[in-house]
Amino acid sequence: MTRPHNYYAGPAAMPVEVLEIARNEMMDFGGTGLSVMEISHRTKEYDAVHQGTIDLIKELMGLGDNYKVLLLQGGASHQFAMVPMNLIAPGESADYVVTGTWGKKAYKEANIIAKGRVAATTEVDGVFKTMPAQADLDLDPKAAYCHITSNNTIYGTQWKTFPNAGNVPLVGDMSSDILSRKFDPSPFGVIYAGAQKNLGPSGLGVVIIRDDMLAKCNKGLPTILSYGTHADNNSLFNTPPTFAIYMVNLVLKWIKGKGGVAAIEQQNNEKGKLIYNAIDSADGFYTNTIAPDDRSLMNVVFNLQTEELEKKFVTEGQAAGFVGIKGHRSIGGIRISMYNATDLASVQDFVDFMQDFAKKNG
Amino acid sequence: MTRPHNYYAGPAAMPVEVLEIARNEMMDFGGTGLSVMEISHRTKEYDAVHQGTIDLIKELMGLGDNYKVLLLQGGASHQFAMVPMNLIAPGESADYVVTGTWGKKAYKEANIIAKGRVAATTEVDGVFKTMPAQADLDLDPKAAYCHITSNNTIYGTQWKTFPNAGNVPLVGDMSSDILSRKFDPSPFGVIYAGAQKNLGPSGLGVVIIRDDMLAKCNKGLPTILSYGTHADNNSLFNTPPTFAIYMVNLVLKWIKGKGGVAAIEQQNNEKGKLIYNAIDSADGFYTNTIAPDDRSLMNVVFNLQTEELEKKFVTEGQAAGFVGIKGHRSIGGIRISMYNATDLASVQDFVDFMQDFAKKNG
Repeated sequence: MTRPHNYYAGPAAMPVEVLEIARNEMMDFGGTGLSVMEISHRTKEYDAVHQGTIDLIKELMGLGDNYKVLLLQGGASHQFAMVPMNLIAPGESADYVVTGTWGKKAYKEANIIAKGRVAATTEVDGVFKTMPAQADLDLDPKAAYCHITSNNTIYGTQWKTFPNAGNVPLVGDMSSDILSRKFDPSPFGVIYAGAQKNLGPSGLGVVIIRDDMLAKCNKGLPTILSYGTHADNNSLFNTPPTFAIYMVNLVLKWIKGKGGVAAIEQQNNEKGKLIYNAIDSADGFYTNTIAPDDRSLMNVVFNLQTEELEKKFVTEGQAAGFVGIKGHRSIGGIRISMYNATDLASVQDFVDFMQDFAKKNG
Repeated sequence: MTRPHNYYAGPAAMPVEVLEIARNEMMDFGGTGLSVMEISHRTKEYDAVHQGTIDLIKELMGLGDNYKVLLLQGGASHQFAMVPMNLIAPGESADYVVTGTWGKKAYKEANIIAKGRVAATTEVDGVFKTMPAQADLDLDPKAAYCHITSNNTIYGTQWKTFPNAGNVPLVGDMSSDILSRKFDPSPFGVIYAGAQKNLGPSGLGVVIIRDDMLAKCNKGLPTILSYGTHADNNSLFNTPPTFAIYMVNLVLKWIKGKGGVAAIEQQNNEKGKLIYNAIDSADGFYTNTIAPDDRSLMNVVFNLQTEELEKKFVTEGQAAGFVGIKGHRSIGGIRISMYNATDLASVQDFVDFMQDFAKKNG
């Protein structure tokens, strides 16, 4: 069958070329005669995948030698717990800038484990439609860290310029836009991301931690929940999710082959222009009320005039081969998730569909 | 290339038929036109995989409705922490029967988190060569649970009859022999297993928990580390490792197709007879000093007379197509891991190799 346009929010589209390699190597990985998921994590064949993945993340993100890359099990929800567990020392608290559902969950978790403090929230009547300005942030200069969510999958907002927390290290949940654009990592003490949007299949969390943060992690934690355990053992303390890491490795090579993050970013900018232009030029048939500077290039949310029309849009869209276009169950509407693996031609096809639908139903 | 005989201890051999299905469905899962790892965990297509996996585990293991099956990220090392975190109430302690490296790690973890007590250990001079008799157990009738490791991958020992802890619920780490044999689950309050031996790829932990244990789990835990979170959400609180679960689903269907656990157990018994007989009948060329009743049917360890000869055995064995036969780095010697996916013919080929090697070097 023809591949549909995959707009799921995560697990999400993977590059076809990557899936084809995984298929072709399923019965014989690297001349072993075995699948990569059947070989020990202590073999030289797997080690090349493991180390290669760590090295490529560092290379593609331009991380200095003062950052360690950890490949852990569990996604972002797991890091909501590990971050405060490791990084808020007794008597300290951490700042949270809450710009969506996931940031709110991260904040709540910090208060189960230690002490979190809201440095800003854009929640109004239970929803998040805006992003805070730098002046809106009430920052604690003694905070253990300042946590942000770089992109909000549900509300379709994104930090275009990261906030300045002064001497307080940023901790960034970048699950939904890691490797989608270039940025200066130096203000970040920790960056984490679940793999299932821009990196690969679900089941893996990438944690990037700066050496000074690693040095001040709390001691006496459960072994498996301590960043130190994994840093000391190069993420081989326990059996890593080898197949997921192999898939991420293939995705990273694909990004590099495309020209790296700069080239990917350019494509993401073009995709964004295309679709937001289609929304804004539809004479109100489609609406997105997010300030242009805050609009996400990964998850585009919009509404039609009525719920009924939205339902029709989803049904006809699916029939036309666009899957995963229904908005998150908590806010409804339409949502298009267009991560790195979504190409410009797919977005163009979707825009054509939007214009056609507007013409017929306007 | 010809598939080698895969004797890795984990990640380990998977049924060829399962890998072939995964390969054939890589670009189009269930008529979606997408890989199973690209679709949302909230779709009906994935839900059939998820629920099917839970149902098949219950069916194949003969679990009553008083057990919940959780599909979690992280393997056994993760459960070393989650078990005491959830199940030892303030003021309580838990018993640990320590019969190998992994049981010892589980015990240590209990003491980081709460309080563990050794009910028995068979460690002598840093190694574990025996299993305790029921009379050797110093059980605390007030223990929160009694933890055992059903099979010891490094030392090649296995509980053939599980110990009786009276009214204290057993907690079993069955990572390396789950679904390899029939047993009565009723004394177990919790059974857990990393997937990468008998179930599928690494990156998934299966936790089976009885309702009475679930009811008394500690409150106020980090959300993601609470069994209650996952039980209440049918393991869909956060994005599950969908591809790993899909692979486990295929393995479970394969077991069912073979005739279920009873048929698998019979094959495992035959494999065990074959190889232990080859060791015992080699006139001392090969030695395994474990009491016959305690010998593992999953991991067979043995020695040759000298380390030099063992090295030669490994080198020639690998050249003959037997991979993963070197003993664990902590004890040396030879180790053959023959989980469910290893068939009798493979073990027969290995026994032929052993006999040939003994003839040439004896």
